[in-house]
Amino acid sequence: MTACATAVTEPIDLAGLRLRIDAELAGFLDGRARAAAAQELPGEVTSLIRDFVLAGGKRLRPLLCALGWYAAGETAAPPPPSLPLPVVRAAASLEMFHAFAMIHDDIMDGSDTRRGAPSVHRALAARHAGPGDADRFGTHAAILLGDLAHAWSDELLHTAGLPPGRLAAARGVMDTMRWEVMYGQYLDLTATGRPTADLGRALRIVRYKTAKYTVERPLHLGAALAGSAPARTTALSAYALPLGEAFQLRDDILGVYGDPEVTGKSVLDDLRTGKQTVLLAVALARADPRRRDCLRSLVGRPDLDEDGARQVRAVMRESGALGEVERLIGERRRQALRALDRTPLSPAVADALRRTAHALTGRRA
Amino acid sequence: MTACATAVTEPIDLAGLRLRIDAELAGFLDGRARAAAAQELPGEVTSLIRDFVLAGGKRLRPLLCALGWYAAGETAAPPPPSLPLPVVRAAASLEMFHAFAMIHDDIMDGSDTRRGAPSVHRALAARHAGPGDADRFGTHAAILLGDLAHAWSDELLHTAGLPPGRLAAARGVMDTMRWEVMYGQYLDLTATGRPTADLGRALRIVRYKTAKYTVERPLHLGAALAGSAPARTTALSAYALPLGEAFQLRDDILGVYGDPEVTGKSVLDDLRTGKQTVLLAVALARADPRRRDCLRSLVGRPDLDEDGARQVRAVMRESGALGEVERLIGERRRQALRALDRTPLSPAVADALRRTAHALTGRRA
Repeated sequence: MTACATAVTEPIDLAGLRLRIDAELAGFLDGRARAAAAQELPGEVTSLIRDFVLAGGKRLRPLLCALGWYAAGETAAPPPPSLPLPVVRAAASLEMFHAFAMIHDDIMDGSDTRRGAPSVHRALAARHAGPGDADRFGTHAAILLGDLAHAWSDELLHTAGLPPGRLAAARGVMDTMRWEVMYGQYLDLTATGRPTADLGRALRIVRYKTAKYTVERPLHLGAALAGSAPARTTALSAYALPLGEAFQLRDDILGVYGDPEVTGKSVLDDLRTGKQTVLLAVALARADPRRRDCLRSLVGRPDLDEDGARQVRAVMRESGALGEVERLIGERRRQALRALDRTPLSPAVADALRRTAHALTGRRA
Repeated sequence: MTACATAVTEPIDLAGLRLRIDAELAGFLDGRARAAAAQELPGEVTSLIRDFVLAGGKRLRPLLCALGWYAAGETAAPPPPSLPLPVVRAAASLEMFHAFAMIHDDIMDGSDTRRGAPSVHRALAARHAGPGDADRFGTHAAILLGDLAHAWSDELLHTAGLPPGRLAAARGVMDTMRWEVMYGQYLDLTATGRPTADLGRALRIVRYKTAKYTVERPLHLGAALAGSAPARTTALSAYALPLGEAFQLRDDILGVYGDPEVTGKSVLDDLRTGKQTVLLAVALARADPRRRDCLRSLVGRPDLDEDGARQVRAVMRESGALGEVERLIGERRRQALRALDRTPLSPAVADALRRTAHALTGRRA
């Protein structure tokens, strides 16, 4: 009875998992750095990727992958087993993929900072000495470093030591995740600079770019690594999709109202590029004509300054858009939590997923 | 005896192989297009990649992969067997990878045309209507389309239907090939705009960017797919590396002296970006001070016109650089052919590799 009682309250050690994932990433990158040094290839390639990958970040996708693996397990309440090394490495491959996605995303969004440090294309531009255009060099070299991280994400997965059947299942999830997020980014790109009041369009971008990529597919990957049945995968989607949407809606708010000291990101980038966020769609739909004109004249201006951003923030608040997006976040969090209640999960897993839902939607960074 | 006599002269059907590779690529992309349509995702993503992949190209890397597979086989002279479908599909994955590499390469080199048609970033820029910067959109969307082709190259390989052991061996070669070519591109990028007379540096770029990527690793991939012994792989390198270098040296010459109607590429791009080619390194080393100054003042100018290019061509010819690079090509072709003579291969395979060596080094496009 004592063992059983302990088990119910024994939480999954997410902080410990994070350390294991980081150790896996560091070990892999050390190996790549040694291989490059052995052939006298430039050392900054691996050191820049290493700095970027290990500089911080929530490790959200690998942790969700781990939770997907746990969720596919027993629904009784034993102490949660330690995650097998091949699963840790597969989870780390998601983080390497995310590094690739962020490096390219920062180029596309013209973001100068990420995680409080210069984005990779800015770091590379700063290294460029001598003749030629430093910005151009930075962008082009960052395309390559992103490509390398993409290839290495793949290598981490297929050298994880998974049995062939599990590896094949995992690859299927990764394939789907990759094309979904790339289409999502493409939808985002075609909408950027021409934002509209079309909430459906804005939510569709969110679904592909974030909800599936950040929450649903990482959980599915973990479930696939555990040999999960399709029914479990469907149940995880019912939790993942509304939560992933809420996560992006929170991101939209932080992208305009956040504290750059905490988020590590500019609060001007989204407004300057004219990003089609749900927040902006709602504001355009709700603002009176005068305020709508104000939004239209300011959002999308590459030279928008803090003063202009303040005006945009005021319009978004006064039009009720900020409150409405908070409402949408709350609604989606409740949907996700209700889906959890309907799914038979061990208490430790249900608890971790519940904590994750609150962390992702209430976060400040 | 009749069957045997026929076998010796039966060549490997490279044209037929090419058709099978193209059919595999078309079939795969059709599937991706249907999947996108089913989710009402934008159709131009697959149609642009499809147009680009199937518009032409020599299919060099997949054909060399096929020859690597044949080279790993029996050394007697039976009629060459038909390439198994999983090997065709793995070979096609190399072509999809190459599409990715070219899409990103054209962004980095600022190339407006490829295979006689607009490069992908130009085609995307032309589609951009409405407000915003069309060039910027074209570049960013092309980064994404390239990323998608990269992911699809991977998917083609791991869904090829290979037995797990062969797939793992193939992935090992692909991993190596990917980082080699990306480091090669990085070396190229850091040297572009600041060309020197350092022949060793120029040849090192060639080795990583082209010789390994275009010739050595495709042959190794094919050999790995056939379960080849390491000794055979080493023997293929002795043929591949000098041939790959000669291929790039020919490319350098075509990039300056070629006929754009035949190559499908501009003869100004390399000169305008100040590409560190072997041709330019030799010209800078051999030209007298006056001509060297002329090269330095013209090469790397973004506004270089046909008249300036004519002067560069004259200096390269008069300094003896053009002749010297032709000599380097001939020397490397002979090395490659001598390596073939030392390797026990079936007559059909040796013949195909010999024809390939001549085609790659004597080509006009």
